[in-house]
Amino acid sequence: MEIKLRPIGVVHSPFKTNEDIETERFADPQGFDSVEGDLEIFEEYEAGLKDTEGFSHLIIIFAFHESEGYRLHTKPFLDDQLRGLFSTRSPNRPNPIGLTVVKVVERKGNRLRVKGIDMIEGTPILEIKPYTPRDQKPSIKFGWLEDKMKKK
Amino acid sequence: MEIKLRPIGVVHSPFKTNEDIETERFADPQGFDSVEGDLEIFEEYEAGLKDTEGFSHLIIIFAFHESEGYRLHTKPFLDDQLRGLFSTRSPNRPNPIGLTVVKVVERKGNRLRVKGIDMIEGTPILEIKPYTPRDQKPSIKFGWLEDKMKKK
Repeated sequence: MEIKLRPIGVVHSPFKTNEDIETERFADPQGFDSVEGDLEIFEEYEAGLKDTEGFSHLIIIFAFHESEGYRLHTKPFLDDQLRGLFSTRSPNRPNPIGLTVVKVVERKGNRLRVKGIDMIEGTPILEIKPYTPRDQKPSIKFGWLEDKMKKK
Repeated sequence: MEIKLRPIGVVHSPFKTNEDIETERFADPQGFDSVEGDLEIFEEYEAGLKDTEGFSHLIIIFAFHESEGYRLHTKPFLDDQLRGLFSTRSPNRPNPIGLTVVKVVERKGNRLRVKGIDMIEGTPILEIKPYTPRDQKPSIKFGWLEDKMKKK
């Protein structure tokens, strides 16, 4: 069984390469919240953006289009130990798709100006969903990452 | 450009048909939080589940495998007006992929017992990611859905 997806748009980002992203991550893992960029949705899908501006946050699913292969145990950027791949947000995955929750700044036609971009210029956008109360989990445990963030 | 994905596992759910899901939704939109099910990850990917049990919540990306076609303006189940598709969580989308945040109950080998299932039996799982502090947005606006939830 194979599921075929086609991009519905493309990310315009101040980050031009994966190295730009890594630099930001090391400087401030929370720093992406202030990074602005544009989501250009192809015109054939523009009508579907109606009402998105009523939501403060959107979930963007995108392709890690520069991903190559994967390992089931991997060392996350914040850690020095091998972790199970599905407990990390590594771009190198069996299905190389990523997910970021962005804040809507404004919509102009088929372009959404958003904050919270951690994708590189040219990233193919696969899906946009509204972030709703069911996506809010106020009280969470976050495993190995918890220790790492406390130590910072 | 086409992105090809392969299922990494399959959902085992008390919901056997889409009608079962709709019945639950009408009875209590928040009711899914207590619905338990299993995520069976294919054995070849089991090693990647290491460390997931340290996280209270996981993001599951799955295929809406019974989805057929889509309309860019659609009437959500809670609403009586046409809304832009990307402001809804309708299963009928250009790229028919869904997303649910589930709560981890326990892991036994390649099976994760979780709460918060709103998929039907046999749903193909495409991706598992840890739910991290960056996915928490405590203060949100949620557009047309906000009015509908207040009225209930």
